[in-house]
Amino acid sequence: MKAFMDQNFLLENETAQKLYHLYAKEMPIFDYHNHLSAQEIFENKQFRGITEAWLGFDHYKWRAMRSNGVEEKYITGNASDYEKFEKWALTVPALIGNPLYHWTHLELQRYFDIHEPLQKKNAKDVYDTCNRLLQTEAFQVRSLLKRLKVHTLCTTDDPCDDLHYHKALKDENFEVKVLPTFRADRAIHIEKESFLPFVEELEKLINTPIQTYKQFEEALLDRVLYFHHVGTRFADHGLDEILFLPCTEEEADVIFQKALHHEELTRDEIRKFQGKIQVALGKCYHSLQWAMQLHIGPMRNNATRRYQSIGADAGFDSMMDGFVAQDLSRFLDALDKEETLPKTIIYCLNPKDNEVISTMLGNFQDGIIPGKIQFGTAWWFNDHKIGMQRQMEVLAATGVLSRFVGMVTDSRSFLSFSRHEYFRRILCNYLGTLIENGEYPNDIEAVGKIVQDICFGNIVSYTEAGYNTK
Amino acid sequence: MKAFMDQNFLLENETAQKLYHLYAKEMPIFDYHNHLSAQEIFENKQFRGITEAWLGFDHYKWRAMRSNGVEEKYITGNASDYEKFEKWALTVPALIGNPLYHWTHLELQRYFDIHEPLQKKNAKDVYDTCNRLLQTEAFQVRSLLKRLKVHTLCTTDDPCDDLHYHKALKDENFEVKVLPTFRADRAIHIEKESFLPFVEELEKLINTPIQTYKQFEEALLDRVLYFHHVGTRFADHGLDEILFLPCTEEEADVIFQKALHHEELTRDEIRKFQGKIQVALGKCYHSLQWAMQLHIGPMRNNATRRYQSIGADAGFDSMMDGFVAQDLSRFLDALDKEETLPKTIIYCLNPKDNEVISTMLGNFQDGIIPGKIQFGTAWWFNDHKIGMQRQMEVLAATGVLSRFVGMVTDSRSFLSFSRHEYFRRILCNYLGTLIENGEYPNDIEAVGKIVQDICFGNIVSYTEAGYNTK
Amino acid sequence: MKAFMDQNFLLENETAQKLYHLYAKEMPIFDYHNHLSAQEIFENKQFRGITEAWLGFDHYKWRAMRSNGVEEKYITGNASDYEKFEKWALTVPALIGNPLYHWTHLELQRYFDIHEPLQKKNAKDVYDTCNRLLQTEAFQVRSLLKRLKVHTLCTTDDPCDDLHYHKALKDENFEVKVLPTFRADRAIHIEKESFLPFVEELEKLINTPIQTYKQFEEALLDRVLYFHHVGTRFADHGLDEILFLPCTEEEADVIFQKALHHEELTRDEIRKFQGKIQVALGKCYHSLQWAMQLHIGPMRNNATRRYQSIGADAGFDSMMDGFVAQDLSRFLDALDKEETLPKTIIYCLNPKDNEVISTMLGNFQDGIIPGKIQFGTAWWFNDHKIGMQRQMEVLAATGVLSRFVGMVTDSRSFLSFSRHEYFRRILCNYLGTLIENGEYPNDIEAVGKIVQDICFGNIVSYTEAGYNTK
Repeated sequence: MKAFMDQNFLLENETAQKLYHLYAKEMPIFDYHNHLSAQEIFENKQFRGITEAWLGFDHYKWRAMRSNGVEEKYITGNASDYEKFEKWALTVPALIGNPLYHWTHLELQRYFDIHEPLQKKNAKDVYDTCNRLLQTEAFQVRSLLKRLKVHTLCTTDDPCDDLHYHKALKDENFEVKVLPTFRADRAIHIEKESFLPFVEELEKLINTPIQTYKQFEEALLDRVLYFHHVGTRFADHGLDEILFLPCTEEEADVIFQKALHHEELTRDEIRKFQGKIQVALGKCYHSLQWAMQLHIGPMRNNATRRYQSIGADAGFDSMMDGFVAQDLSRFLDALDKEETLPKTIIYCLNPKDNEVISTMLGNFQDGIIPGKIQFGTAWWFNDHKIGMQRQMEVLAATGVLSRFVGMVTDSRSFLSFSRHEYFRRILCNYLGTLIENGEYPNDIEAVGKIVQDICFGNIVSYTEAGYNTK
Repeated sequence: MKAFMDQNFLLENETAQKLYHLYAKEMPIFDYHNHLSAQEIFENKQFRGITEAWLGFDHYKWRAMRSNGVEEKYITGNASDYEKFEKWALTVPALIGNPLYHWTHLELQRYFDIHEPLQKKNAKDVYDTCNRLLQTEAFQVRSLLKRLKVHTLCTTDDPCDDLHYHKALKDENFEVKVLPTFRADRAIHIEKESFLPFVEELEKLINTPIQTYKQFEEALLDRVLYFHHVGTRFADHGLDEILFLPCTEEEADVIFQKALHHEELTRDEIRKFQGKIQVALGKCYHSLQWAMQLHIGPMRNNATRRYQSIGADAGFDSMMDGFVAQDLSRFLDALDKEETLPKTIIYCLNPKDNEVISTMLGNFQDGIIPGKIQFGTAWWFNDHKIGMQRQMEVLAATGVLSRFVGMVTDSRSFLSFSRHEYFRRILCNYLGTLIENGEYPNDIEAVGKIVQDICFGNIVSYTEAGYNTK
Repeated sequence: MKAFMDQNFLLENETAQKLYHLYAKEMPIFDYHNHLSAQEIFENKQFRGITEAWLGFDHYKWRAMRSNGVEEKYITGNASDYEKFEKWALTVPALIGNPLYHWTHLELQRYFDIHEPLQKKNAKDVYDTCNRLLQTEAFQVRSLLKRLKVHTLCTTDDPCDDLHYHKALKDENFEVKVLPTFRADRAIHIEKESFLPFVEELEKLINTPIQTYKQFEEALLDRVLYFHHVGTRFADHGLDEILFLPCTEEEADVIFQKALHHEELTRDEIRKFQGKIQVALGKCYHSLQWAMQLHIGPMRNNATRRYQSIGADAGFDSMMDGFVAQDLSRFLDALDKEETLPKTIIYCLNPKDNEVISTMLGNFQDGIIPGKIQFGTAWWFNDHKIGMQRQMEVLAATGVLSRFVGMVTDSRSFLSFSRHEYFRRILCNYLGTLIENGEYPNDIEAVGKIVQDICFGNIVSYTEAGYNTK
């Protein structure tokens, strides 16, 4: 029997252990998609305590607590910090087989040097120890980033954001690169309530009324340029469904006018508008050598009364199950046929789409940038051991795993960087097992190089990779 | 090499073996969904022989025999009992990797103390031994239930059923609780041939014509109350697809009138009516603290000529592949937003929906009843080793496995309770392996408690769990 | 640690090894679906070199190279043979976890007796050795077929093909049976550009104008008879989606006229026409005792500019994700209800359809021909270790694996027959592991017989199996 989460956690054989300890473990982290606050980094935030750090915003944990019968008072309500923590500590042992169980203990081990399983009987001790440590300088957020060797991190930012804190961090030359990401959602989702307020914000920024689709597109692309100058190299599109229909500028303008006048749009109009604006953005990213991320597949805010009382991102989202293949293909092709398809990273929330997306990549690989089109790492509900393993296997079997740009935390938590360790262990176990099974030669150095590339090297060269633009 | 189906069958390591033998094995069975006959229990049926008990109605076995080239004469035709049994015995060895192989031998072992593999050369011996035993008192159905420690079982009953035998068993205080389940299918499926005859039966029961949707709903909810007084605590909706659109009472009435006049309904009308009646039922279940089961995804009676010659439930059903996420979410939300969502157990037939459903749960967990929304155990075509393992893994990774209410046989056979053993072995192997891999602490008592909860404890407290109703 | 791809490659335990070496290894190959050229067999082609043999048309390898950043010049362009080979040799080590890695080395081992991993440092040596051998008589294509014990192979042929070389090979009594397959795609896909040219070719062949649907159907069925006389026993339908709606002859004719006049067809018209012509073909196959193959699910030529510059089948295809269950069921039922459903083999490209198809089989098994309806072996993007394993597990769990007709290469390459070895190893490992786990009795002879049936015996008897036709 293996010891509980010891140094060889998830590493089931000697080759896997070698790969992890000799090659993966010490690699820096390039976390190219998360939801951290640049302001908190700039201000070098100190947490009030473990309850704030762990439970202040983590809707994964909230869901688990609700499922386990914990009342809302102890989740998003006004119970005391310790009461909330204790409810979490009581929930943890029920999470057998859940990644939260592993993440919790990885964080306790790596950040707090606590190696026992969190449970009822040690809840108070763990709480006190963590809270004491969190008051120290070593637990300010900048120290936390450096502790886990974060080299670069990319936050998620609205096109209208002024990026004040990103600029300040850049000016200050903070050793961890903190880059903004252009999250285009409000511009794409013409069908959502957030669209008209977005247009208004944009108008204020440029100090000009936006009355046509063309003006809208131009104002938006100006923001792309603004982001570029602050250091952005990644865009991100959050898409419940990937929608695409060919659309002329005239059609886009008609649809845009309807939206301005609060008229209901048909599904095909939404497909056209989303297609049009995403093609425009894609071309622009391409010209700037950015990578475009597509996050496809959540179904959000399913519980109306919870959305009304608690708001978004509170643990009431799940997976959509729409079609992906045709509209995604048509969208990528619309860019590719004009040779303006940027580097693209495609994530799916529903694992039924793993194979569709992994085989889609090959259609648009250009033979110039290795791994130009990427299958994004196991996302959200899939970032557990089996989900990650499955993503890697599908990518390996139908693409070129060696070119994979690897893990992102996609997290709101400064303590979540140990999830890169989780990923790396699963990766090393997968590759080590292939060697142990005689499915790949026992060339530890060559496979160690693949490991290091997937952990760090690939994303560095991917970010830098360019091509002659039109 | 492990011995064939010995005491450690499916238990691949010592921890798994301990969990099974010390914690799971002796737990009683609470089989909250099956298709047994209350009359046969009341009358303490004695089988004519093993052919009747095994092959009289088991469409799983019929399919396997047809696939193996056995003529219909030996399946549903007029061949002799022994001829049919022999054809089955010849088919069994071909079923490598099929759960029928394991179920057959678990039943031979647990009920008949026969430990050799069934095959051509021992077919006659096995036949004779089983038939001899089946004539004894120990093989009357009540003894069979007690032999495997059945504590409670829930049959599947039409809303118009008078539940005569359930009442008789209750009056008699039979030690195994036999509860009826309110199977609402005929009331929901307005688009099927069975709807108008159902309305007529209802009319007869209440001795009043049913001329409006409102009258229909009232008559139906009266039947829910009737079932409740006989002890029902579970409802069940069998749904090829989960369909939902918001629907006013006026709209429902228009659709109901169309159905009464044999007019064809559009898909959206069907979505509305099914939504309306299921919301009405859901509210009623909620007020009575029932659990609502949703069985989503079969495509039935695919072979027309077989349906015409043999009828329904004869082995000609397979999996649908429609969308699930949006209509299911809207249906549950329609109940949740009025705080009238009952305890709900959602089963999918198509395993592509595992993740959609498992992540749906968390949207509607209320933090009051632990595991209020359940992902139903691997169902029908999925109740094999890999299917069960996969259901548990998905539930564990995206929900809280510890709160799972566990296995049901969903069977028409009194010999099928050994499938609970099958489930328990797979469960113990899964959890034991997590411990052996160092993915969970080696706290055998804590995990043993989780095992016992999933085998029995959870379903008991789940059935009893209530809340303040509106 | 197991040695790299040695004799026990993929065989993880002793029973698996026994099954492979004693039962599977020496079985002949019946490759009932591939894309080889009868002409090249007749002419006993000698390859110019390994670049032609490996890289001349293999779009699997092309995709992998593009994904790895190899420029088109070295793929389909005018680089030299050695330059192309070297780029491939540099790509191979990146393909960890990819079936191309295994296929490449199986081919080097079995055909060229080269046992080291292909990589940069031995690229020139391997190139020279292969090229030298390829000039010898032992490497002419007829020798290659005989080397791997190919007993029968079925090519893929257009209905208008005159089958000259198939006839010539038959006349010559070449010891490997080379049978044409009736690939009906151009006749079915009324919505594609290839339809009208197909009608014209058909007109030329019969020397009569085709002006009605009925004439079209008759001319097409005449081609089925022509193929039958040359030895065809398999048809094949390549279907992006399986489409079916009931359709009268009158409706079919209206749709046919629209196509003749270049009018756009609605989706339902396409469903009707495809349904009509496939039912007509299915009946005809049934009367001739043929097997009908349905290949469902590719999305082709996704990258427009590549299609325009390089053409079809160049590595720009991926998976569709449409619905399958209902239209497939209705199509099979349309034939079954008239008792004219032929033997049918259904392949899916998207593995999400595995369970839908595997459970569909049982609906239409007739109890006369064992395994009459087959779940085709893991196809194209799924023919890797995990994909094959998964196909077998699903088939075993929901059908009768013992009746499986097994592997096809589906390949354009004369060197690809070692993929049957790949399949056989995975099969033996699966069955051996069931025995080792105590999930099936340790009756090596019985399981060895199952192995031999799946490798060869089943497809032989399946091809010969008949029934009384109407």
